[in-house]
Amino acid sequence: MTVPATAAGGEDFDQLGRDAVYRAMFTRRDVRSHFVSDDLDDRVLARLLTAAHHAPSVGYMQPWNFIVIRDAERRRQVRDLFLAAREQELPAMEEERRALYRKLKLEGICESALNLCITCDRQRSQNSPLGRWHNPEMDLYSTVCAVQNFWLAARAEGVGVGWVSIIETQALKRLLSIPEHVTPIAYLCVGRVSEFAPKPDLEAHGWGRRLPLPELVMSEIFCGAGEAPLKSAIVRLGAEDRRKP
Amino acid sequence: MTVPATAAGGEDFDQLGRDAVYRAMFTRRDVRSHFVSDDLDDRVLARLLTAAHHAPSVGYMQPWNFIVIRDAERRRQVRDLFLAAREQELPAMEEERRALYRKLKLEGICESALNLCITCDRQRSQNSPLGRWHNPEMDLYSTVCAVQNFWLAARAEGVGVGWVSIIETQALKRLLSIPEHVTPIAYLCVGRVSEFAPKPDLEAHGWGRRLPLPELVMSEIFCGAGEAPLKSAIVRLGAEDRRKP
Repeated sequence: MTVPATAAGGEDFDQLGRDAVYRAMFTRRDVRSHFVSDDLDDRVLARLLTAAHHAPSVGYMQPWNFIVIRDAERRRQVRDLFLAAREQELPAMEEERRALYRKLKLEGICESALNLCITCDRQRSQNSPLGRWHNPEMDLYSTVCAVQNFWLAARAEGVGVGWVSIIETQALKRLLSIPEHVTPIAYLCVGRVSEFAPKPDLEAHGWGRRLPLPELVMSEIFCGAGEAPLKSAIVRLGAEDRRKP
Repeated sequence: MTVPATAAGGEDFDQLGRDAVYRAMFTRRDVRSHFVSDDLDDRVLARLLTAAHHAPSVGYMQPWNFIVIRDAERRRQVRDLFLAAREQELPAMEEERRALYRKLKLEGICESALNLCITCDRQRSQNSPLGRWHNPEMDLYSTVCAVQNFWLAARAEGVGVGWVSIIETQALKRLLSIPEHVTPIAYLCVGRVSEFAPKPDLEAHGWGRRLPLPELVMSEIFCGAGEAPLKSAIVRLGAEDRRKP
């Protein structure tokens, strides 16, 4: 785990290195079901947090904090918040999908090695908020980049991560004594896993399917037609992957 | 670039693979200054977009679209929006930092190979918005995860990316014909670069410094003391890196 002193124009990644980066992205999963009871080594967690801390941030604000939650009773309380929130969300689903929604496992709060709440301190650079005058939400987005770094590094370390978004934010803030000016961005379940599922859970259970990427690409303006060569390249890429074992 | 059919419990990454993932994170830069005039091969762009499309998304919503902007005149218009926004933001800076702010290069809109606007369609899963009843902003966060995947994949491919956040959103939406229910999340400058700077620009120019990570780690609750072994592990990790060439 080296932070290189200098970095060249991209030749520092060979094919194996590039493949590893893509593999982390393609095999990353939102893990709820495959946590094992092993502890997570602090040296591994230190690496994952260092990865998160190297996310981009607007105006170099680094607005994040990392609350490590291990206490079993506190986690039970968080899980109670999840269970209550799930009941509240259920009526928002189409009626024919509610039975499936109830069957989905959507968190691993108590069975993961630990929980991690990644927060955004909205006042950290209040004197010189570069890049936030027009888009004050940029600090929230920076914190999400930290979450994604953490998640991808975890995948490469064989550590599973699940993001619990079905939770009432104000109740979570009270439970974790999070002050008014700090926003919890992600509540994560983190731990060693027995496997990373071949497909996203929601795809495996028929909740949704991966959208065709070429249909999401637009040219010059929203819904602009064009970029035919790029779309063909995307299609060929998918075809190549299907030919591989 | 293989999407594996099955994925084991993390043993699929050896030390070299893990190092590559961390290297992409540690050497990723918000690029404004080092774009070269080469075109970007559509096959490379196809891989980067495929990486973005494999980001996590709340309820498997995949709310993103990718608008590829190549036209020089349109880019000049976007740059005009940036220049106007920078003038508006300037007074928000502390007075003694305004001269430095003016000197910072904060975009590479016209000199990069292409621009990419990544948007979030807030209505894409309106019938069954799993995970968004309590936190409707989760679709915005999913789209940010796609941005970060794109950015890290680009780093591994030797492609520079710069996120332009100093821009007035409504004006950008008009220019790109983005409808009301769609939010532009990131306006990116994308292209081959001559180098990736050893440090973030804002650190090199003395705008800010990297915060000490142990001070950002909390235990159980916000500002909760504890996690001494984890904090020690973080410090040791930094010391190891400094000993390496």
